[in-house]
Amino acid sequence: MNNDTICALATAPGGALGIIRISGHQTLEILSRIFSKDLTKAHPNTIHYGHIKDGAEIIDEVLVSIFRAPHSYTGEDSAEISCHGSRYILNKVLALLIANGCRQAGPGEYTQRAYLNGKMDLSQAEAVADLIASTNQATHRLAISQLRGGISTELSRLREQLLKLTSLLELELDFSDHEDLEFADRSELLELTKTIDSHIQRLAKSFEAGQAIKQGIPVAIIGKTNVGKSTLLNRLLHEERAIVSDVHGTTRDTIEDTIDIQGVTFRFIDTAGIRQTTDEIEQIGISRTYAAIEKARIVLWLLDQEPAQNELQDIIERTKDKSLIIIQNKIDKSSTNDFTNIQKETAHKYAFIKISAKQGTNIDNLELAIYEAAQLPTISDSDVIVTNARHYDALLNAHDSIARVLDGMSQQLSGDLLAEDLRLTLSYLADITGGQITPNEVLGNIFKNFCVGK
Amino acid sequence: MNNDTICALATAPGGALGIIRISGHQTLEILSRIFSKDLTKAHPNTIHYGHIKDGAEIIDEVLVSIFRAPHSYTGEDSAEISCHGSRYILNKVLALLIANGCRQAGPGEYTQRAYLNGKMDLSQAEAVADLIASTNQATHRLAISQLRGGISTELSRLREQLLKLTSLLELELDFSDHEDLEFADRSELLELTKTIDSHIQRLAKSFEAGQAIKQGIPVAIIGKTNVGKSTLLNRLLHEERAIVSDVHGTTRDTIEDTIDIQGVTFRFIDTAGIRQTTDEIEQIGISRTYAAIEKARIVLWLLDQEPAQNELQDIIERTKDKSLIIIQNKIDKSSTNDFTNIQKETAHKYAFIKISAKQGTNIDNLELAIYEAAQLPTISDSDVIVTNARHYDALLNAHDSIARVLDGMSQQLSGDLLAEDLRLTLSYLADITGGQITPNEVLGNIFKNFCVGK
Repeated sequence: MNNDTICALATAPGGALGIIRISGHQTLEILSRIFSKDLTKAHPNTIHYGHIKDGAEIIDEVLVSIFRAPHSYTGEDSAEISCHGSRYILNKVLALLIANGCRQAGPGEYTQRAYLNGKMDLSQAEAVADLIASTNQATHRLAISQLRGGISTELSRLREQLLKLTSLLELELDFSDHEDLEFADRSELLELTKTIDSHIQRLAKSFEAGQAIKQGIPVAIIGKTNVGKSTLLNRLLHEERAIVSDVHGTTRDTIEDTIDIQGVTFRFIDTAGIRQTTDEIEQIGISRTYAAIEKARIVLWLLDQEPAQNELQDIIERTKDKSLIIIQNKIDKSSTNDFTNIQKETAHKYAFIKISAKQGTNIDNLELAIYEAAQLPTISDSDVIVTNARHYDALLNAHDSIARVLDGMSQQLSGDLLAEDLRLTLSYLADITGGQITPNEVLGNIFKNFCVGK
Repeated sequence: MNNDTICALATAPGGALGIIRISGHQTLEILSRIFSKDLTKAHPNTIHYGHIKDGAEIIDEVLVSIFRAPHSYTGEDSAEISCHGSRYILNKVLALLIANGCRQAGPGEYTQRAYLNGKMDLSQAEAVADLIASTNQATHRLAISQLRGGISTELSRLREQLLKLTSLLELELDFSDHEDLEFADRSELLELTKTIDSHIQRLAKSFEAGQAIKQGIPVAIIGKTNVGKSTLLNRLLHEERAIVSDVHGTTRDTIEDTIDIQGVTFRFIDTAGIRQTTDEIEQIGISRTYAAIEKARIVLWLLDQEPAQNELQDIIERTKDKSLIIIQNKIDKSSTNDFTNIQKETAHKYAFIKISAKQGTNIDNLELAIYEAAQLPTISDSDVIVTNARHYDALLNAHDSIARVLDGMSQQLSGDLLAEDLRLTLSYLADITGGQITPNEVLGNIFKNFCVGK
């Protein structure tokens, strides 16, 4: 299926340089047809200066990097042409490659070939796309950990335990004619199965945090008009803008109303409303507030005077699955009251923090409180956090199967009756890394969201 | 002045890959501090796989290409890091390089170093920026020709002739005590000087075509309301869109209302008016028409009936420095008259062509007529077309000096009085390639418009 040689632009157009990638067994032959030197005998991992030519016309002065199978990204013979970053040149070189026998690569096709040629497993291939999309320290660490086999290692540990369980059950079967041996070690088997299931569940549970990190943690700012919501939002966003400096001087994508705290992105939701609330009818404000709470993971409740007890209970009730931070604003004003009730109840239900949005007082502490409210697991090389919906589905399926094994054990079913669900569990886990044959449509779904050129 | 080691992103952010360039004598030392292997002994033109690390944390799996002085783009030790194209990663790697001793490169600083280290002359350095900015075949060919020393070769020929002239004048001086020899060869000298001047003038004159090609040739479509200007414009633009296919699937820059004919860009001017002319008061229409003619190099006069003789003469008069194409539209309609007067006068003053914008009849021929109306010189490797305003200024100055030499000769001035202007002519021409010491502010002006990373 990998008979053809593919080419694609691997960089965004518009820079000083543009890189065109070629991969496939005809790479060096095709390249030699349009390059000023014969590259068919070129040594691996070497760089060659020369011209790309269309007949007699010189298209560009380029550097060509040569990689040889199997020591390349795709595992095939491949090359990278470093051209001047003119769109005309890049299109022309691609057109020349195609005219000489290459095929334009589809999205993620290089990485798909790397997977098919055994250079990486499926979860690592998926991590490549995540790595390219990573925008901050947290998403970057998750992707690097997965790329470096974090989840694969975790799954191979699970696989070992499952195989041990299977063999123990088989052993039990072998001795099943000895009546006294039957079910002898079931307590040990039960323990092992429970360990496996809790491991699977822990991985599945990490998906929520993984998603939050990947998509940015939704934060709602609620409160009555004129308590300073807009000022607080600007303060938080402004602080951020001062920290982020764009080293290479290009414009950033529009990432309106998000801040990075300790490498994690927090996304302020429904801020359009906040910016225009002054004239709002209070009733609309309240329903909008409830909607914002629904969508948030962290709720910042901004107040300039102590709320009534029923109001406090209402918000606490509505945020019971969220992290609530109650913020007393305008502490620069002498008229500020003491929030005695709030202070009394702080203990476990919510965080309480005093700020002046206007003067920027205590904003650092508020940011820290927001970060802590996210209750994120530490992201380190040793930790595995699932970020991929496909992996999550497979883990849920694996959990269902192993739960049926547990159920069967509690019903004292014999080993051969448990074997099928054990086999299923193994199979679901293997789906994640693509250890078994992965159907084409699954591969298609995985790689279609990659960029072309990767 | 090149004591420090510089780094910059050389590709646009947002692709599968991002390339970071490093250049300077500390390149390999600095790189080795953040790379998983020691690269200080790496061979030139080799590629190394490894990790960029921030302490223990892996930032990316990368390929590093090593170049050694003097065989690199800049002529210095240099390297390129091929990273995953995540903005976070690219910023992080740049920050690490800077923390370990690199300096962020300014615009065009790599090319400036290449020039200062004698890897290319100044006009070639300028061609690098033009090459990157090239958007079609014509601008690309101009840039490639200049990059490959087109103008430099031309100038060195001029320089030889000027040196010959100088030495002939010196010879004349040496024999000036022999009265009978005085001015003996002046006719030969005069011929040589005239040849040099006409060569300089020819180069200077090519600037107009060079500018037109670089910026797109301005075309005005004029004509009364309802003659089909908008239909024709759409037809011309639409034809173009069908031809341009974007191989790598990225969105094109907004290049509203331009078409490429045989690799040259034609720019339709004042088309906003054309698209909304229906309700226009005729008088405004006429003054707008005159303004459009002023700005155009080619004027398309669209008609659906033969114009009155005075009207025809008015337009011919106003377009006498332009190329006028008179177009008879709506030839699909039976009511069309014969444009007898127009046909009679076609001979030298303008082109005449019959079309149906609505049905697309004869649009191919119209495009050909537009291309011919541009009267562009053939762009080939052997032709030199000046595209750079700095070069143009230098050529005008050189022409002024050599004209003073000619003037002096006609006044029978002696060789020593002509020498200063000859020296000036040589000096102006040398400015173009930077053959003599170029002041820093001139260099600054040249390179400030480059992109960072080149």
